[in-house]
Amino acid sequence: MVSKIRVAVQVSSSMLLRRFATASTSLPPTIRQLLSSLPPTGQAVEVQLSGWIKSVRRQKNVTFAVINDGSCASGLQAVLKPGATPHNLTNGASVRICGNLVQSMGRGQSYELQVEAVDILGECNPEAYPIQKQALPVEFLRDNAHLRARTDINAAMLRLRDSVLRMLHSYYEAQDFHYVHTPILTSNDCEGGGETFRVSPASSAPPSRQSPDPSAQAEFFSQPAYLTVSSQLHLEALAASLSRVYTLSPCFRAERSQTNRHLAEFWMLEAEWAFINHVGNICDVVEESLKNVLQCRSEHALLWKDGDEAKLKTLEDASRPGIPWTRISYTDAVNELQNYHASSRVGFEFEPAWGRALQSEHERWVSERLVGGPVFVTDYPTSLKPFYMRANDDGQTVACFDLLVPSIGELVGGSLREERSSHLVEAIRRHGLKEEEYGWYVDLRKYGSAPHGGYGLGFERLISWMSGIENVRECIAMPRWAKRMLL
Amino acid sequence: MVSKIRVAVQVSSSMLLRRFATASTSLPPTIRQLLSSLPPTGQAVEVQLSGWIKSVRRQKNVTFAVINDGSCASGLQAVLKPGATPHNLTNGASVRICGNLVQSMGRGQSYELQVEAVDILGECNPEAYPIQKQALPVEFLRDNAHLRARTDINAAMLRLRDSVLRMLHSYYEAQDFHYVHTPILTSNDCEGGGETFRVSPASSAPPSRQSPDPSAQAEFFSQPAYLTVSSQLHLEALAASLSRVYTLSPCFRAERSQTNRHLAEFWMLEAEWAFINHVGNICDVVEESLKNVLQCRSEHALLWKDGDEAKLKTLEDASRPGIPWTRISYTDAVNELQNYHASSRVGFEFEPAWGRALQSEHERWVSERLVGGPVFVTDYPTSLKPFYMRANDDGQTVACFDLLVPSIGELVGGSLREERSSHLVEAIRRHGLKEEEYGWYVDLRKYGSAPHGGYGLGFERLISWMSGIENVRECIAMPRWAKRMLL
Repeated sequence: MVSKIRVAVQVSSSMLLRRFATASTSLPPTIRQLLSSLPPTGQAVEVQLSGWIKSVRRQKNVTFAVINDGSCASGLQAVLKPGATPHNLTNGASVRICGNLVQSMGRGQSYELQVEAVDILGECNPEAYPIQKQALPVEFLRDNAHLRARTDINAAMLRLRDSVLRMLHSYYEAQDFHYVHTPILTSNDCEGGGETFRVSPASSAPPSRQSPDPSAQAEFFSQPAYLTVSSQLHLEALAASLSRVYTLSPCFRAERSQTNRHLAEFWMLEAEWAFINHVGNICDVVEESLKNVLQCRSEHALLWKDGDEAKLKTLEDASRPGIPWTRISYTDAVNELQNYHASSRVGFEFEPAWGRALQSEHERWVSERLVGGPVFVTDYPTSLKPFYMRANDDGQTVACFDLLVPSIGELVGGSLREERSSHLVEAIRRHGLKEEEYGWYVDLRKYGSAPHGGYGLGFERLISWMSGIENVRECIAMPRWAKRMLL
Repeated sequence: MVSKIRVAVQVSSSMLLRRFATASTSLPPTIRQLLSSLPPTGQAVEVQLSGWIKSVRRQKNVTFAVINDGSCASGLQAVLKPGATPHNLTNGASVRICGNLVQSMGRGQSYELQVEAVDILGECNPEAYPIQKQALPVEFLRDNAHLRARTDINAAMLRLRDSVLRMLHSYYEAQDFHYVHTPILTSNDCEGGGETFRVSPASSAPPSRQSPDPSAQAEFFSQPAYLTVSSQLHLEALAASLSRVYTLSPCFRAERSQTNRHLAEFWMLEAEWAFINHVGNICDVVEESLKNVLQCRSEHALLWKDGDEAKLKTLEDASRPGIPWTRISYTDAVNELQNYHASSRVGFEFEPAWGRALQSEHERWVSERLVGGPVFVTDYPTSLKPFYMRANDDGQTVACFDLLVPSIGELVGGSLREERSSHLVEAIRRHGLKEEEYGWYVDLRKYGSAPHGGYGLGFERLISWMSGIENVRECIAMPRWAKRMLL
């Protein structure tokens, strides 16, 4: 038996090697690889594979079990003779199966596995197993964060993240951007907000105890260290050498508000590049890269449900290459909001006015009602935006944009950066920031300053938009938010 | 003039589009893209490009200037007529140049740019500019971290990081691994060492002040939060669903020792996968992926220097596909070390003995002297390794390895993980760890436990090995170590 299995594995992996030029000789094919490399002739293929049991249906003359190793959404239906079905073949058990992959007579799958032998590698008591077949409450799964990835939806979300990341990496590579790493620990607080986390060595007295020497803990880096809220300033330093750079970095905000689009720890994709003069060119890159990514439909079957049709149609419309996304200035958007507010019986909770921030209700109205899709809102008032954005010639606005999308609100924010050192120094003063803290940043403008700009994209929000999963807490493997950090 | 330039850009970008199927219409070609897509016939191509001046040589009848946008090591030689050479065309200045790319008559480059027009976008005072042409002291560049990427060597290192990351991502994709993100903030301390960083919101009283309510600061997540030292435990939870996962994650150690291979913030590539039974299979994957990556030679010309030949040869030997890397058990390695220690006049500072940790001098001797290349040392004594490694049947060792490489020492560490819940619980107790803190980790073994294993690779150490740059502080854009955190 053992030698037979060994032969079977060799046959199937050499077959796969032809298809996957760089495939390893060390790792056997996954279920996805097996299913995507079967011969078109329909001949049976002897295989060995491993995975977890997703469902079991015992009938009189035959047992059907779905086995999946997480490599794809569908898994594979295994067909067992009742006599050869172990009693502990239950949901959640891990197994190794040998058998023949044959074209299926049943509906719903084109191949099934006729099982020759099955080994239970790890049992799973079906009564005790928290991950049951039926849909489980969101809160229950958050409490079981270590097992949550075993649900079909969460696994599909994780595969979607992987696919989207690869498409983004490919996009930037084709544009000759360099993938760089900017620091997580920083002395700067990019947005000037108070919602940063402070870092100190655990081996010095922890913050909850009173230290005899109050300065002892701050000494590790000779100055206070914070967790980054944005990589942008550091990316600018690198763009001044490599021209085009991007990073995918964890970012941290000690935000106490509980919304479905905020996390204390989240991933941000930030790109920055030199030799660009118009904010519209930044929008071009954002739009092109996202339309590319929106083509990814591999997990749609698991993620989108009956009743989601309208949201899904908006998403699919947005992915069409030929049709440009709407662009509107902040000033025009405020006019539209004011007209609606004056003419509609309902109106907004907050009255829209030029110079005031757009509230969440305003953003949603612009993208969901006015435009019905993604929309770039550009050229916000100077007073609403951070110091580093480039001043427009009108003296009142900056060359920036927010990309608003239905259901989510702000997905991307970007701008030209102020490359004129005198303008920048003035903006730092006007914002009440300490010049000495931004000395290095101003320095970047002293030596061969170049016009440049970039943007940041909230990765979990993108996944939320693309999956229809409403809360970003379900768009990351192990979410952290105020009062919650399991594992 | 303007319309002529516009035409030139259109011609060259449509030419490039044929080569780069997904190339943007929004971004003009970089110098690398231009040079890699020139027609083989040698005909002149009208281009516009932007970058920084790397050197200027003014002669009587002609001025030569090297311009680079950071997209490749070489840059491009521009040839200007003296009358058309602005006085502020100096090292470091940012420029936009229009001209014709023609085959070069000079040595050292195959193409040169005959300049029609040049715009200085940002001046650079050559006297004040800290980044001078000659080699600059390492410490000076560390002090100027924000400008360091502008040196040729540092830019080459950053491009090497980019290339290596892309090759690693491709490797894992071909093996059907999923790229996942594990948390940076965690309540667990994977290795049980004391060198973790503690995190608290900056808006509560900072650790350096005495808080009236000592517990207030710890409350943000309802429990103390630390920066991750390894993603492994979290990866294991995801591998129990997706089978094959990896992550590239920042890791943090509050290490006070000053060595050339330690940083307080570094990047670690960690992979974890299920259905594996032998530590040798993990070594197979490590070896295959690294041999793949070692093929990357694009930046060798800038990074390796006269005198480096021996180190470079070891590196190139290691990359040969046909020749397997040496594997040796810890026990055999200790025997070899003891024999050498007994027979050599010099010997080691620390006497090697079974059951003791290998010191840096031992590791280097094994890889540099005994083997002369990368070597997997396997099956260390249980007492030397963390609780999660799988016990071997001998009752004395665990199924693990360290990959030691010349000049670096430990580059990769990995193991099978203890998938038997009773063994795991016993190991937790034996290591004096709190069972309740690892409840979720033990839980992974309760439901469909599967044999699994993985490894972690210090990314900056890999870059150090591949570049010959001895200190990891020069292998990352903006390094952080004890007492040092600029920007």
